[in-house]
Amino acid sequence: MLARLEQVIGERRLADPSTSYVAKLSARGVPKIAQKLGEEAVEAVIAAMADDREGLIGESADLIFHLLVLLAAKGVTLADVAAELARREGVSGIVEKASRKG
Amino acid sequence: MLARLEQVIGERRLADPSTSYVAKLSARGVPKIAQKLGEEAVEAVIAAMADDREGLIGESADLIFHLLVLLAAKGVTLADVAAELARREGVSGIVEKASRKG
Amino acid sequence: MLARLEQVIGERRLADPSTSYVAKLSARGVPKIAQKLGEEAVEAVIAAMADDREGLIGESADLIFHLLVLLAAKGVTLADVAAELARREGVSGIVEKASRKG
Amino acid sequence: MLARLEQVIGERRLADPSTSYVAKLSARGVPKIAQKLGEEAVEAVIAAMADDREGLIGESADLIFHLLVLLAAKGVTLADVAAELARREGVSGIVEKASRKG
Repeated sequence: MLARLEQVIGERRLADPSTSYVAKLSARGVPKIAQKLGEEAVEAVIAAMADDREGLIGESADLIFHLLVLLAAKGVTLADVAAELARREGVSGIVEKASRKG
Repeated sequence: MLARLEQVIGERRLADPSTSYVAKLSARGVPKIAQKLGEEAVEAVIAAMADDREGLIGESADLIFHLLVLLAAKGVTLADVAAELARREGVSGIVEKASRKG
Repeated sequence: MLARLEQVIGERRLADPSTSYVAKLSARGVPKIAQKLGEEAVEAVIAAMADDREGLIGESADLIFHLLVLLAAKGVTLADVAAELARREGVSGIVEKASRKG
Repeated sequence: MLARLEQVIGERRLADPSTSYVAKLSARGVPKIAQKLGEEAVEAVIAAMADDREGLIGESADLIFHLLVLLAAKGVTLADVAAELARREGVSGIVEKASRKG
């Protein structure tokens, strides 16, 4: 799923901004994309707290989508993130070390 | 990658909180998990703005990880989120409609 | 400044939603107000990181404004928050203890 | 209240980081201060959603405190923010225009 989404975003982000949301948002630059990511995270938090299951699904989709647009804008791939997740698991032997901060 | 991470989280989230970070965080409940998700999003935003590529990779990994812990706590699966992403693409014919809000 | 803003918000929040932004937002309830607060915080973070002074001033105004709308919705007054800030200073003798978390 | 807090922060932010939280946080720079602001906003959102009145008071105090530390780091004063809030009210005749975005 994410691999395909990443591919489509990669194809569209440099297109004419009038042709797609990905292109339009990407053209506005990193601050605007980062703002959208932050906003979607806030909405996911609120949906979870409000026990709004459908809302949480929708906001999670938005959050993942905007994260991929941001990563593309910064030249980071899903493979980079997957490698980091795998590295943590490998180093620790346990996924829970995915967060070092508790 | 995410499917495996989801599986591991599913296996560990109800374990003894002393045995893993996933179990410990999950035991603290939705407000604490949601708080972590929000914090990781803020850190991803800041890493992107600071042009900190390694930081962005690490924070993106943290963000995805905590999103999966939150989804598990609310009984939402990655398949639910994938279906929503696919539905948007199917409805509109274009992934850009992944966000209806622009 | 804040005292006057709090007073105006208190006067308008229960008015007809068509007559003011405060009334309209308040009528949408705590989840929507909290969402706006979170969004303004994200925008303030981004303005600070982008070294956008005018943006930071504007977003800080938005942040304070929406915090006051949220506090009013939850029945919390500025006096409650001021008492908490004063209590921390009094307990510790130093304002820096305003955050116990470092 | 805020004026006094701003004054104390102004006096301490450039002191030896070992002597106060304000000095320590300020020494870590804008990205870290901005991160703390974002985190406190997330915590205020969650406290409001959880109907945790004492938590909301505490997180609001933290939010205001860290906003002032961030503003000081960027050379923005409370007077600048107050002028912006007053300007909006003056321009529109109504405080609700404090947010142009609805």
